[in-house]
Amino acid sequence: MLLTLYLIGITAEAMTGALAAGRLRMDLFGVVMVACVTAMGGGSIRDVLLGHYPLVWVAHPEYLALTAMAALVTTWVAPLMRRLRMLFLILDAMGLMVFTVIGVKVALDMGLAAPVAILSGLITGIFGGVIRDLLCNRVPLVFQKELYAVVSLGAACLYLLLLHWQSPVWLATAVTLAAGFMVRLLAIRYQWHLPRFHYNVPED
Amino acid sequence: MLLTLYLIGITAEAMTGALAAGRLRMDLFGVVMVACVTAMGGGSIRDVLLGHYPLVWVAHPEYLALTAMAALVTTWVAPLMRRLRMLFLILDAMGLMVFTVIGVKVALDMGLAAPVAILSGLITGIFGGVIRDLLCNRVPLVFQKELYAVVSLGAACLYLLLLHWQSPVWLATAVTLAAGFMVRLLAIRYQWHLPRFHYNVPED
Amino acid sequence: MLLTLYLIGITAEAMTGALAAGRLRMDLFGVVMVACVTAMGGGSIRDVLLGHYPLVWVAHPEYLALTAMAALVTTWVAPLMRRLRMLFLILDAMGLMVFTVIGVKVALDMGLAAPVAILSGLITGIFGGVIRDLLCNRVPLVFQKELYAVVSLGAACLYLLLLHWQSPVWLATAVTLAAGFMVRLLAIRYQWHLPRFHYNVPED
Repeated sequence: MLLTLYLIGITAEAMTGALAAGRLRMDLFGVVMVACVTAMGGGSIRDVLLGHYPLVWVAHPEYLALTAMAALVTTWVAPLMRRLRMLFLILDAMGLMVFTVIGVKVALDMGLAAPVAILSGLITGIFGGVIRDLLCNRVPLVFQKELYAVVSLGAACLYLLLLHWQSPVWLATAVTLAAGFMVRLLAIRYQWHLPRFHYNVPED
Repeated sequence: MLLTLYLIGITAEAMTGALAAGRLRMDLFGVVMVACVTAMGGGSIRDVLLGHYPLVWVAHPEYLALTAMAALVTTWVAPLMRRLRMLFLILDAMGLMVFTVIGVKVALDMGLAAPVAILSGLITGIFGGVIRDLLCNRVPLVFQKELYAVVSLGAACLYLLLLHWQSPVWLATAVTLAAGFMVRLLAIRYQWHLPRFHYNVPED
Repeated sequence: MLLTLYLIGITAEAMTGALAAGRLRMDLFGVVMVACVTAMGGGSIRDVLLGHYPLVWVAHPEYLALTAMAALVTTWVAPLMRRLRMLFLILDAMGLMVFTVIGVKVALDMGLAAPVAILSGLITGIFGGVIRDLLCNRVPLVFQKELYAVVSLGAACLYLLLLHWQSPVWLATAVTLAAGFMVRLLAIRYQWHLPRFHYNVPED
């Protein structure tokens, strides 16, 4: 079940990467690369930071084939993307939650402490998008837009709390996915966002 | 002693990250993320490149709590930052030196050769700022401004020389910190800088 | 032989890094840093992603001395670079091929599967340039310009095919280098490029 959701998640992330590449008029290679890095980048950074080898795509190169395919399909169906926008945001929200839960699980399986597990979930959830934005030469959206990273952070905490309260893993997973997914959709709907910090003194 | 200076150093680095985030009007999550990455990024890149696990913040997540706190405090005291500018530069210079010495120590403890230890000090000293600037979508300051990286490089060499001359570790540490700190402040005061390389032929 | 070509390759890559830094009027430290990262970055990212320690420049810091030297020499001979452009593109094409073959070899020596070996070759070939462009705050050229990454990809596949067909290693290496080199020069000459993906719907 989690695997199915994970595959949907990397597909959705790959599509966001492909669209960002298309806005910069990249060639097909660039589109595929940005898509793969967006989809697998969060998990890769997590694994490198935690020393958790082999990386997911080294063990399962077929996942990269899936994301590459998703990128190419995106270039064909792009004219429809506007109409599919809501579906797309829903898949992306699902991906965010699945990535977060997987990230927490990986850290727990390595025997790491709770705060590190929360960060592992957060990194897995958002850093694919951060690298996508770096490769596309823009300030990462996740540092500026409505609640996205914070939902990932909250979901990681909730998951740990549920396990701490002796919830079975499948239940903790299901509740976290459902709750985080809902909050994320509400955040989009009502444009919830964190306060911003303005600092206007120029560098000297 | 070195630990106290280290904590001051990551606090100062976190504040530079928070201010850079504020210039881009990031939200509070972005501010905290950029601050943490600025403070812990240099050491993390060093550890990943050298295969030195676990990373500092994995072993000590409480340091991340400190940098997150420093970032939030920065958003409150930002209006005062202008007047505190000199204090701030002093703390930053201290941080640069402490990071450099710690980077050299880590490499020596791993039994690596002197040139690698020097690079380890340099990477620890400056790469936090490099990632901060990447996340803020600008060319890294450290590649352009007055003597900063070179002071880190010189301090790493001095430290190794002192150890080579049989100086006890505490003395080598103290002398390196003091000398590097002084040179850095002089570089700011007199705007010492390296020659620049201008190349105007456009890419084709 | 492969080592000689490798040294020529990192020298050529260091020069592209130094020129990119000069376009941004970096100081000499920045020039040397960008050059070293361009030359050694692809291999470093490969090694970190595959968990292949120690990294090349940790085992051989003298290679970094070579790239640093190449960067400084570039700042002196820059006025001649225009006239040497063809020579430069040839050396760069050679570097791309050597990096690719070395990347494939590293993965095979680690016992990794064919698709991972191909990616290892690709990453080694192109990611030095990707980091160079990130540090210089621009969208990676390799995602936009004429056939470059695809030649690396094709060469990696050819090399594996030749080994699969029982070709001796020296022959597979020579044929791959020659074929990839030729295709790359033809791609430059006739400006072969992949189709681009335009997507004009703005982010909201």
